[in-house]
Amino acid sequence: MGIWMKAKEAAEEVRTEVAKAAAEYRAEGIVPKVAVLLVEGDPASAYYAESKRKIAAKLGIEFELLALPPESSERQLIDVVTAWSRDERVHGIMLELPLPRHISAAAVATAIDPLKDVDGVTPANKLAVMTGEPGLYPATPQSCIRLLRAYGYSPEGKHVALVGRGQTVGMPLFHMLQREQATVTVCHSRTADLKRHVQGADIVIAAVGRAGLLTKEMFRGETVVIDAGINEMADGGIAGDVAPDAIETAAAVSPVPGGVGTLTTALLFENAIKAIRLQRQAVKKGAEAK
Amino acid sequence: MGIWMKAKEAAEEVRTEVAKAAAEYRAEGIVPKVAVLLVEGDPASAYYAESKRKIAAKLGIEFELLALPPESSERQLIDVVTAWSRDERVHGIMLELPLPRHISAAAVATAIDPLKDVDGVTPANKLAVMTGEPGLYPATPQSCIRLLRAYGYSPEGKHVALVGRGQTVGMPLFHMLQREQATVTVCHSRTADLKRHVQGADIVIAAVGRAGLLTKEMFRGETVVIDAGINEMADGGIAGDVAPDAIETAAAVSPVPGGVGTLTTALLFENAIKAIRLQRQAVKKGAEAK
Repeated sequence: MGIWMKAKEAAEEVRTEVAKAAAEYRAEGIVPKVAVLLVEGDPASAYYAESKRKIAAKLGIEFELLALPPESSERQLIDVVTAWSRDERVHGIMLELPLPRHISAAAVATAIDPLKDVDGVTPANKLAVMTGEPGLYPATPQSCIRLLRAYGYSPEGKHVALVGRGQTVGMPLFHMLQREQATVTVCHSRTADLKRHVQGADIVIAAVGRAGLLTKEMFRGETVVIDAGINEMADGGIAGDVAPDAIETAAAVSPVPGGVGTLTTALLFENAIKAIRLQRQAVKKGAEAK
Repeated sequence: MGIWMKAKEAAEEVRTEVAKAAAEYRAEGIVPKVAVLLVEGDPASAYYAESKRKIAAKLGIEFELLALPPESSERQLIDVVTAWSRDERVHGIMLELPLPRHISAAAVATAIDPLKDVDGVTPANKLAVMTGEPGLYPATPQSCIRLLRAYGYSPEGKHVALVGRGQTVGMPLFHMLQREQATVTVCHSRTADLKRHVQGADIVIAAVGRAGLLTKEMFRGETVVIDAGINEMADGGIAGDVAPDAIETAAAVSPVPGGVGTLTTALLFENAIKAIRLQRQAVKKGAEAK
């Protein structure tokens, strides 16, 4: 019987640090502010956006939510994020996904100032994650590594089976795990023998979006399992990619909900604070260059 | 006893196609041209640049080699590649590495037009390799996959142990292997049990730059081994990352020299032809937009 790696405490620590930093900026006359763009029509997106609003209020971060009607054009969204990118009162910009089919998320993301891109979706930040250069990295992969560390597990020198290779979680996480000095096997829907790779690993991270794909037979008594899956179930609840009874065989499993997702939201705001710092450095550098 | 996967034939096929395409462009009045920038002082670089000149001549591709003195500044190099980027008679730009310590290769690479970047070193092409978008991909990783295919081995559904994670070969190859639907384990200097990962794999690709790191004990009778290592030996010869006696235990091994490197040079010129096509498409798109 393993332990559940709950994220509540780690998330609380991050929020405390963020609130402290926000208060310090306010004392200097800078009011930290994030702006969220949402296209109406997806209930889950609206829910997430409102959750962020509540947390922002607690952290002393100003929050602007702009909800556009479903028929809005790509051009309109690009204009909004372009205006926010130029507005020095806005420090962080988030784009709630999914967008309606007629709008390219990549096209809108590209218009966000990389220094305000707290979701890490601009080309500049995608490249930074890959090469290890400074930038704003996406929060979910960060959360997976931070949750491991919070429970005393370091990926260094360990064999990690990463199940999932999406552009949002899997791929950035792969690159971040390289810098943690892990040996990573990337598994996916076309992997011939998933069980063999998962069983051989010290740490298993699931980010594939298929409820219960990883089952208890795949783990050994030493396996540490991070579940980054968020699957909406027919009953309205959410489930991870790991079957809950995996706790019977693995050493440790992160729960869904209450695991990766809980810490991710806190890290989004940590990114917003980091964004302010990067923006101030850029202004300073610009002034020195003159 | 395995077979040697020599690249001569595959390289010859690529060169034939390139020469044919070059002749077609010439018939249309377009003289394919690549320009190579070299900083004097590294004998191996000078040797490679001159080898490319010989091949270019055989393929009907014009070749300009500019050799700058070792004390040249970063600014001077940037100015050269910027001028070539603007010059419509130049279709491909190559930067011979290594550069002297006082010059940042990344800074110079960033000044190359991504549509002329036949080495795949600009940020735009690094990102394209990662996401799978169209672009110019680096030739060495392409060569590894093409050499496998030339001998009837497909990475699809196979477990690949990729030894090495450099920005030039390992990382782009990792992303290209994702699109080949391989399950990839990335091994490196900090991997705890290299032998275990290599022994479990169907295909092993070495790109780490340590002569003889992979030894015959690490392979099974089914293992296919691609050696992308180029190590200059004290006697003036070059050796791969795989010990030559690996042929005794593996199913197939690519030789060094005569393997990956041989095909790479041909693929560089294939990239140059592809570059012309991409540049013409961009011009056409630009005209349509007006």
